[in-house]
Amino acid sequence: MKVKEFPISAGKLICVLNKIDAEDLGVFPGDRLELINKKNGKNSVAIVDVTNSEVKEKIIGLFEDLISLLKVKSNDFLEVRATPPLKSLDFIKKKMDGEKLNGFELKEIVKDIADNRLNDIEASAFISAVYMKGFDLEETTEITKALINNGQKISFNKEPIVDKHSIGGINGRTTMIIVPIVACAGLFIPKTSSRSITSAGGTADAMEVLAPVDLCFEKIKKITEKHGGVIVHGGAVDLAPADDKIIRIRHPLALDPEGMLIASVIAKKASVSSKYVVIDLPVGPYAKIKDKNNAIKMAKKFVQVGKEVGMEIDAVITNGEEPSGLAFGPALEAKYVMEILEGKRFDNLAQKSCELAGAIFELANLTGLGKGYDMAVDILHSGKALEKMKDIIHAQGGKIDSSIKIILSPLNKEIKAKENGVIQSFNLKDLTTIARISGAPANKLSGVMLNKVEGEKVFKGDVIMTIFAENKQKLESALDYTIKNTPYHFKRIILSSVRDSD
Amino acid sequence: MKVKEFPISAGKLICVLNKIDAEDLGVFPGDRLELINKKNGKNSVAIVDVTNSEVKEKIIGLFEDLISLLKVKSNDFLEVRATPPLKSLDFIKKKMDGEKLNGFELKEIVKDIADNRLNDIEASAFISAVYMKGFDLEETTEITKALINNGQKISFNKEPIVDKHSIGGINGRTTMIIVPIVACAGLFIPKTSSRSITSAGGTADAMEVLAPVDLCFEKIKKITEKHGGVIVHGGAVDLAPADDKIIRIRHPLALDPEGMLIASVIAKKASVSSKYVVIDLPVGPYAKIKDKNNAIKMAKKFVQVGKEVGMEIDAVITNGEEPSGLAFGPALEAKYVMEILEGKRFDNLAQKSCELAGAIFELANLTGLGKGYDMAVDILHSGKALEKMKDIIHAQGGKIDSSIKIILSPLNKEIKAKENGVIQSFNLKDLTTIARISGAPANKLSGVMLNKVEGEKVFKGDVIMTIFAENKQKLESALDYTIKNTPYHFKRIILSSVRDSD
Repeated sequence: MKVKEFPISAGKLICVLNKIDAEDLGVFPGDRLELINKKNGKNSVAIVDVTNSEVKEKIIGLFEDLISLLKVKSNDFLEVRATPPLKSLDFIKKKMDGEKLNGFELKEIVKDIADNRLNDIEASAFISAVYMKGFDLEETTEITKALINNGQKISFNKEPIVDKHSIGGINGRTTMIIVPIVACAGLFIPKTSSRSITSAGGTADAMEVLAPVDLCFEKIKKITEKHGGVIVHGGAVDLAPADDKIIRIRHPLALDPEGMLIASVIAKKASVSSKYVVIDLPVGPYAKIKDKNNAIKMAKKFVQVGKEVGMEIDAVITNGEEPSGLAFGPALEAKYVMEILEGKRFDNLAQKSCELAGAIFELANLTGLGKGYDMAVDILHSGKALEKMKDIIHAQGGKIDSSIKIILSPLNKEIKAKENGVIQSFNLKDLTTIARISGAPANKLSGVMLNKVEGEKVFKGDVIMTIFAENKQKLESALDYTIKNTPYHFKRIILSSVRDSD
Repeated sequence: MKVKEFPISAGKLICVLNKIDAEDLGVFPGDRLELINKKNGKNSVAIVDVTNSEVKEKIIGLFEDLISLLKVKSNDFLEVRATPPLKSLDFIKKKMDGEKLNGFELKEIVKDIADNRLNDIEASAFISAVYMKGFDLEETTEITKALINNGQKISFNKEPIVDKHSIGGINGRTTMIIVPIVACAGLFIPKTSSRSITSAGGTADAMEVLAPVDLCFEKIKKITEKHGGVIVHGGAVDLAPADDKIIRIRHPLALDPEGMLIASVIAKKASVSSKYVVIDLPVGPYAKIKDKNNAIKMAKKFVQVGKEVGMEIDAVITNGEEPSGLAFGPALEAKYVMEILEGKRFDNLAQKSCELAGAIFELANLTGLGKGYDMAVDILHSGKALEKMKDIIHAQGGKIDSSIKIILSPLNKEIKAKENGVIQSFNLKDLTTIARISGAPANKLSGVMLNKVEGEKVFKGDVIMTIFAENKQKLESALDYTIKNTPYHFKRIILSSVRDSD
């Protein structure tokens, strides 16, 4: 068939057929075809879209992605073949019917997802099946291996490679404190982080205030080997393509099947050759995991699956009930972290970071059990972690290397207490929403800064929090939301009352 | 934002944003936005695609579907707003977690599917959840009502309106025999049929050999009221848009959750105002339902759900073990049906058609219990059904009104017996595959005709079946497949033997 170019990237391998040709080939929208460029031997599977008008008979419309993959242009000829049914579809159906999948079957599914052979409907059915039927330990291990083998791997000439990962849901940039501390101790930590999906900012967003984070493969390797650590955006290096595609499918319904989550985290760590990994599982009403017993069960699985792929894991359950640090939004978080490294603050975020760094030290046998925390605190207090962070910032190409250099939005508003009392709790979900309304994370200068901590005594007129906004309109919206959904609560003695009229 | 047109129909409501704008709006690929054309008040929800290059900042790319919906053109301005999270997503998650959904929740989901607010990932998660968690009778009834209320309805000035529906998996064009018989008896049967998805041809494909089947709303009404029946392609009239979209999602994994199937069939019947409906549930190794007990359970649900929406249903379990008639492929099937109406044949297809027509007569109280079959056979033998079929063909705009006018492919090949014996069975799946390889249903003249029936004595050299193919290459492929997968089996006395070497 003759090619017609559509100069649009669909992010998927889509070809457009005339209705008559589709009928001839016996394919429906969403079905697959094999396309072969006989001139150069390039071939690809494509997902079919059907039209009545945009392409005529005997013409095949190709989006950018296929054009560049097959190296064709308009009016070139392509051979078009029906593909045999994918085996992975049978395996997905099998999982839907509640049966266990073996390594071969999971490998086929992962391969077909990575190569875009499964369409969204099919991939979503797979994730839904895993969510509803679950993965046992063996299946979790097998899909972890499949994800690892389907991606790339950065190998380092130094060792040991260590890493840490927090299962989201909680604010706080521990990574930016842990990486310099750990690097000071002679370990190597090539930390890839994500941008925010639903929060006020991810680690990659906050680090980007200080230095570029979209680093290539080679630079990550070079800086880690020289300085002991990097803090980069994982999305910039295509280390686990299948996993990235699975995450895209998980996103709309926020489906986090435990087995998939474990596999995804461990595969990402394996792709940077990590040997010792600390997994942070925060438990709390606003965290992903609400219940401690579930966290412990999950922690055990992390350790076991890690072992199967040659990784030593310490999965720690952490208190995720209160905000971790006081900042919400990229620049506020970056400034806050730098102040901790500069010795201007030491709070629950600093403490958590030192505890996690300490766990890494103990796991990597740098110190005895129970002594890691002190070692981390010593490094932090010595000022060496700050120097190391500056080295990393400069190596990544950044210039903002101290808290006073960080600019916040000049458009801000303080929220003051209307009574005397003690702050019982902050609502993390509301704080995140306010930060997002104010412009974070897309606008890095915006967000929310708390001026009080939980349990702190407050007098009427005291500033409880400050909102930094991108523009006037966003500031007003954020204030409006704050008034309607007070994100903090005072301690009360009378919890409720019953009166006659009730 | 400024509009840029992409002159391609995506079949979905997709808008393309620059990565920077997407970040600003806080949306990811697959998320939704509300688009408002302030000039004419038109608005629509659109699903977001993100690009680095094809559209610049502050530009929004729109595919044909949105262009015509919003009535905009390139360089027009659109207001773009984030949409609040869809409630239906919570309901889908609820079903995934095994909870029962109520009428309101199902209505929301159906509405969001019909209006393209749910993307493929989300809709697939819903169908997967229904497949894995099931629908109870109440949920099935509620989603049936939601589908009915979301579509259009053809109302007739005549009554009673009757209908029949076969749950697929088996060949045989009973519809084309039942409709004229039933119409002769003074009932009204506006039959909408489908084209083939996985078989050698659907009823719409076979009827199209005789007359046009893509009729509009008004013509269906007029012909049914005048002649008592039509046989048209249901896809041509958009009676149940939500159902059509759900079927598209069900197709790739062939997911047929029972509750969805029942709801889909009953909603389609309700959309043509049917009062008395016979549902044919074939049971057999190649039919959709393999087990009689399951068929009975399903039949009971059909009756109950029908009752809830004011429809009287007789759900009959039929023998689906052997081919129903001898033809596979549109023209062969059309010819075969006309020969039955002309009185040249009376076999298991004719019998099944008369039994089902009889069931309709009894359901509509035209005759007493047990007397419907004889009444149908009388009408068929009288020649009145043939005359009625000619009227319907002419009314639909067709000219081919007798079996001898139907042309078959001149390129055909007989398959002969290599030994004497008795045919024990045909493999329906293989026969379908051979017919499809030979060119059916896209090429209407192609297919397979059996020259023997199950249980028939065969002598060496007798013709067992004939393959009619679109071209030489397809004929060779079909022959090749036939030789490799003998689609018929002779009776054997020795079923298996155990020898020393085993």
